[in-house]
Amino acid sequence: MTHNFSELHDATARELRDRARGGAFTGVTCGIAMGHVQANLVILPKAEAFDFLLFCQRNPKPCPLVDVTDAGNPEPKRCAPGADLRTDLPRYRVYRHGELVDEPTDIVTLWQPDWVAFLVGCSFTFENALLQAGLPLRHIELGCNVPMYRTNIACEPAGMFHGPMVVSMRPMTPAQAIRATHICSRFARAHGTPIHLGDPSAIGIRDIARPDFGDAVPIAPGEIPVFWACGVTPQAVVMQAKPAICVTHKPGHMFVTDWKDVDLE
Amino acid sequence: MTHNFSELHDATARELRDRARGGAFTGVTCGIAMGHVQANLVILPKAEAFDFLLFCQRNPKPCPLVDVTDAGNPEPKRCAPGADLRTDLPRYRVYRHGELVDEPTDIVTLWQPDWVAFLVGCSFTFENALLQAGLPLRHIELGCNVPMYRTNIACEPAGMFHGPMVVSMRPMTPAQAIRATHICSRFARAHGTPIHLGDPSAIGIRDIARPDFGDAVPIAPGEIPVFWACGVTPQAVVMQAKPAICVTHKPGHMFVTDWKDVDLE
Repeated sequence: MTHNFSELHDATARELRDRARGGAFTGVTCGIAMGHVQANLVILPKAEAFDFLLFCQRNPKPCPLVDVTDAGNPEPKRCAPGADLRTDLPRYRVYRHGELVDEPTDIVTLWQPDWVAFLVGCSFTFENALLQAGLPLRHIELGCNVPMYRTNIACEPAGMFHGPMVVSMRPMTPAQAIRATHICSRFARAHGTPIHLGDPSAIGIRDIARPDFGDAVPIAPGEIPVFWACGVTPQAVVMQAKPAICVTHKPGHMFVTDWKDVDLE
Repeated sequence: MTHNFSELHDATARELRDRARGGAFTGVTCGIAMGHVQANLVILPKAEAFDFLLFCQRNPKPCPLVDVTDAGNPEPKRCAPGADLRTDLPRYRVYRHGELVDEPTDIVTLWQPDWVAFLVGCSFTFENALLQAGLPLRHIELGCNVPMYRTNIACEPAGMFHGPMVVSMRPMTPAQAIRATHICSRFARAHGTPIHLGDPSAIGIRDIARPDFGDAVPIAPGEIPVFWACGVTPQAVVMQAKPAICVTHKPGHMFVTDWKDVDLE
């Protein structure tokens, strides 16, 4: 993912969605429409939706729900009235039986009348608050993806959905980690406070230099790794469950809501 | 409801549940097993459970979920491992097509393999915190039920479930109301902060002296009514939806979990 400090940095959520809908914007949403809540997307048929909703309810730190649509209706009425989740993301991923089969820019012809869309809160919300507080975010300084790791922390299972929590990592001094924890306590609907800091092996991470997703970042002397529950968790869990069909956003290509970050406090 | 300051005031949650299971305790749970989180119960068949779970997710202030069971399993594994929701409440209510048909002390023979049980947070949690802070609770001083009112605040609908929010009311001075708001902000899973204070008509309450549920309490000079979203809301909404079958606790006869009030912070 490259960060997009373009003309879209100050775009409204609706402008961004309109461009995505028309196919004029198919890129990553990091650094655009700043201040608007962005969300991970998971779409499942209603037959699997109860178990997935229960999974999110039982695992609110990795799966903080921002909005859930009525079955068959692609409009997220609460966080973006008038939007259409079949067209308004820059790029999608289509999984059949857990295998990635396509990365289209819309899912109009795929959409089924029993599909339910889940929008899950995203780290951009608390990262914006950390940046505003002057705290360092190494992956943004370096213009790369945040490093993410599979842990040995088991999520609470729900029906067909189970698996380990995935975490993102940001290096900080202990004093910065404490300040970040304080700030993130305001954002329970965007992963909230960290789930661990310090020794990576305590949560089953063998090699901090080799993330499972994203890019490695250096940890400076005097810094410790700080770990947050990550919105990749629900996608990893769904892939492992191998439902007949599932649609998500392509990583980094998030849904941009009308809500402002402060609305999630 | 009368308040029970008996020998059970300091009982453990398990002792209380064991007595309820054996039929030795069939009373109200207010003032017993103090410090343990108590919860409202709603049981629905899985066919209606997705819409109800979605309703709770969309309306977290009246419907803060404490635990949701796997379909067919009456054990609330997270908040009370080993407990049995078919037997461990003092008294139940059985509704068929929205009509109250029975108030049994267990539902062992009724229970079906597709039933899902929802445990919804309860005002006792924040009331305990308010009492510990020295704030007055008029209905407890008077030994009566808290007054509850239907409002004109529409809940966010989900499928078959829709209807107005029900609120509970506690009279306080403005300074006490501010302190209570601060304290309750710690308990998002037990209704959280008030939803209104002052003029009852602003939320559609015509006569504060005539509550829709519970008992009227006097408001002293210098006090204002302070309103919290109430756990009666999901029950009222389910009754209005008239599912073929629904089981709840009898009002005041709550499920007592192993969790302590501080665990909900």
